[in-house]
Amino acid sequence: MENKNYSQPSSLKAPLSGGGGAIYKYSELSVSDISRLIQRNVDPANEIRTLVEDIIENVKQHGDNALADYAEKFDKVSLDKLYLDKTELQEIAAAVSADQQAALQVAYDNIYKFHQSQLKTEDKVETMPGVSCWRELRPIEKVGLYIPGGTAVLPSTFLMLGIPAKIAGCKEVVVCSPPQKNGKVNAFIAYVALMLGIDKVYLAGGAQAVAAMAYGTESIAKVDKIFGPGNQFVTKSKTIIQSTTTTAIDMPAGPSEVLVIADDTANPVFIAADLLAQAEHGIDSQSILVCTSQQIAEATQAEVDRQLPTLPRAEIARQALDQSYMVVTGNLEEAMAFSNQYAPEHLILATQHWQQISGSIINAGSVFLGNLTPESAGDYASGTNHTLPTSSYARAYSGVSVDSFVKKITFQHLTHEGIQNIGPSVEILAEMEGLHAHRNAVSVRLSPPAP
Amino acid sequence: MENKNYSQPSSLKAPLSGGGGAIYKYSELSVSDISRLIQRNVDPANEIRTLVEDIIENVKQHGDNALADYAEKFDKVSLDKLYLDKTELQEIAAAVSADQQAALQVAYDNIYKFHQSQLKTEDKVETMPGVSCWRELRPIEKVGLYIPGGTAVLPSTFLMLGIPAKIAGCKEVVVCSPPQKNGKVNAFIAYVALMLGIDKVYLAGGAQAVAAMAYGTESIAKVDKIFGPGNQFVTKSKTIIQSTTTTAIDMPAGPSEVLVIADDTANPVFIAADLLAQAEHGIDSQSILVCTSQQIAEATQAEVDRQLPTLPRAEIARQALDQSYMVVTGNLEEAMAFSNQYAPEHLILATQHWQQISGSIINAGSVFLGNLTPESAGDYASGTNHTLPTSSYARAYSGVSVDSFVKKITFQHLTHEGIQNIGPSVEILAEMEGLHAHRNAVSVRLSPPAP
Repeated sequence: MENKNYSQPSSLKAPLSGGGGAIYKYSELSVSDISRLIQRNVDPANEIRTLVEDIIENVKQHGDNALADYAEKFDKVSLDKLYLDKTELQEIAAAVSADQQAALQVAYDNIYKFHQSQLKTEDKVETMPGVSCWRELRPIEKVGLYIPGGTAVLPSTFLMLGIPAKIAGCKEVVVCSPPQKNGKVNAFIAYVALMLGIDKVYLAGGAQAVAAMAYGTESIAKVDKIFGPGNQFVTKSKTIIQSTTTTAIDMPAGPSEVLVIADDTANPVFIAADLLAQAEHGIDSQSILVCTSQQIAEATQAEVDRQLPTLPRAEIARQALDQSYMVVTGNLEEAMAFSNQYAPEHLILATQHWQQISGSIINAGSVFLGNLTPESAGDYASGTNHTLPTSSYARAYSGVSVDSFVKKITFQHLTHEGIQNIGPSVEILAEMEGLHAHRNAVSVRLSPPAP
Repeated sequence: MENKNYSQPSSLKAPLSGGGGAIYKYSELSVSDISRLIQRNVDPANEIRTLVEDIIENVKQHGDNALADYAEKFDKVSLDKLYLDKTELQEIAAAVSADQQAALQVAYDNIYKFHQSQLKTEDKVETMPGVSCWRELRPIEKVGLYIPGGTAVLPSTFLMLGIPAKIAGCKEVVVCSPPQKNGKVNAFIAYVALMLGIDKVYLAGGAQAVAAMAYGTESIAKVDKIFGPGNQFVTKSKTIIQSTTTTAIDMPAGPSEVLVIADDTANPVFIAADLLAQAEHGIDSQSILVCTSQQIAEATQAEVDRQLPTLPRAEIARQALDQSYMVVTGNLEEAMAFSNQYAPEHLILATQHWQQISGSIINAGSVFLGNLTPESAGDYASGTNHTLPTSSYARAYSGVSVDSFVKKITFQHLTHEGIQNIGPSVEILAEMEGLHAHRNAVSVRLSPPAP
């Protein structure tokens, strides 16, 4: 089946919307075509490495003074002090309307309920008589949350990081968010801080905020793990911190993306709305449709063209769609095979038959099942976390959860019977590796010398 | 209480054994003394970065040919082919004695049993009527295991990585181990491969093996995550791969370490054996004793001096002990406070009163409870994993477990009732963040247009 809408695989950058519309036929794609289609720019920010390294070094050396200088330079604000306290947060948060408060409460409650279910104690296992092993959860003591500000104010991200930190029981939660030009944070950020019981928000953004939380300054505590999305400076700073200090990070981050799998039971109006919701995030977002029906793909394209001009962020979405594409497959299994290779951050199964294929999902961050489950629900309020692996990191990484805020420490206890049962095997194994002191640590316990 | 054995905190490098014996009194240590005592060299290998980057680039460009060249250069062996197949592994494994086989089987069974218990399905949570959220485990599809060879042959590490990979259900398990001068691997490695059902072991070591698994070569598959300890070249290669590709790594790695907390119910013979078992690993290992009893600390020192000369690896252990020290505290709570700041890879509670303090452990990799539980048991055969966070990474990282070989993917499903319940809140939240297309993805589902 030939169709004028099919671009040749060699012109992978043809636009999804605007009349062109890159639609590929799965059966005609070569292995190398697919590997080009699933490619993302993993490290677009490598050219800013030196700049970010300088910022980190400066914060390490000069602490709060460096942060104040960067606020002046980057955020165009002269700060009297580097944080907002509870009273100030309350004043700012007063601007949040009752409707908005109620919506935030719905999100809070659902996110709390789902994440609470992730906190589980584990059973002891007696691997041999007298040999007991188990794991106990311990909260990471000090965590840092980076909450973006400026043009992209994301109170939802604050909930997604703050709630699991609270459930995990982290003792110290440091929050950094860039100051607005008035030296404050957005009202929603202030309101969420208070919802979470956080009494202080540090006015620091960008690479410098990450550096401050990794090294500590006069006012900001050094933390054990840093969470949160941000622009390319934030991301680069997190990557450098991870590889040069003992401070951990939640995960590497790239532009957001969605892959929608659809068949002829899908609604093109819904799919188009989902593709556009992803595309409005930023010009580097990707919105991919993998569809068993040429007709649905074309109808979706028409719907995208119809809905796009109505959006305030139409220009951003249009540019993102220029980097996106559609693939038409012979069946849902082929569609899933493509999706597993792409390893999307968000995967929407826009089909009544989602139960037929959800078991074959191998790589994805978060999955939205059926025609009535928009990604927006999970972005905000259904309960799942929206901090997810992008850029094919879903092959090896999971999204943020309570797990991300705890360590699982292994414990073991041997009784007298236990050391007798396991000791002789350990002696042989230590000998095999040529580690005689390892053997001896068992031997002295098997036949302790007279006191 | 003064004692001639107390070094001044300014001379923190005084040796534990050999007559000198750095014993510090906790109450006399300043905050800065403690922060110097708990300091480890996080990145001793940074000077080899360029060298390792060159190796990675060479493997990326020249694949198998580069690996053969490095085998010739570093392992002093000319390889006909880059792997051992099942028949070859069987021939090599024939050298393992019946006793050794039985000991490996004990280890295998215990490790399997404990790790099997970590694989759990999770319940669905209905956060609101009609809104269901849950997580499903999926194995990481392709994993790479690096098993050190040469002077440090570690069949135990192979079990510790291979068993959870098998339990998780990883589809492809690539194993690399450096060739011996005869072009083979050690008999124990071959035997464990066969126990694990692994039919192929690739003859590649060092930074080049890590690069091969990250980028793939003609014969070695590109993997999603790389596991395993190694020398500084392996470690540096893993760190670079983590920050420059989408391939994940198990964790950063540094020299191994143990911290023993003891009181007057401890046995100095056992403690000394445990400290020496750690010290024989390498000259950069650390063996720390934190003890409530000056008398036990001194008796342990005497025992270390007595046991040390009997060890084949005495010289290595002696050098490691030169970097180690003892701290005498007023009580077990102070000892635990010091340990939590140190965040040891291995923590031994050498006291009958371990139940009194184990609940206050915050930072540790794996914990050994009571006087009859040597670290050796967990190193080999009790069931817990021995791939653990070193260098204070235990503040934020857990040891390897089945969790390390799976992703937890979030799923959600909304019914008609669900979207009606949650939709209006999502619309408000999307509006708050200025994301109208996000709002629209809900709105079209709340009131779909006439078909």
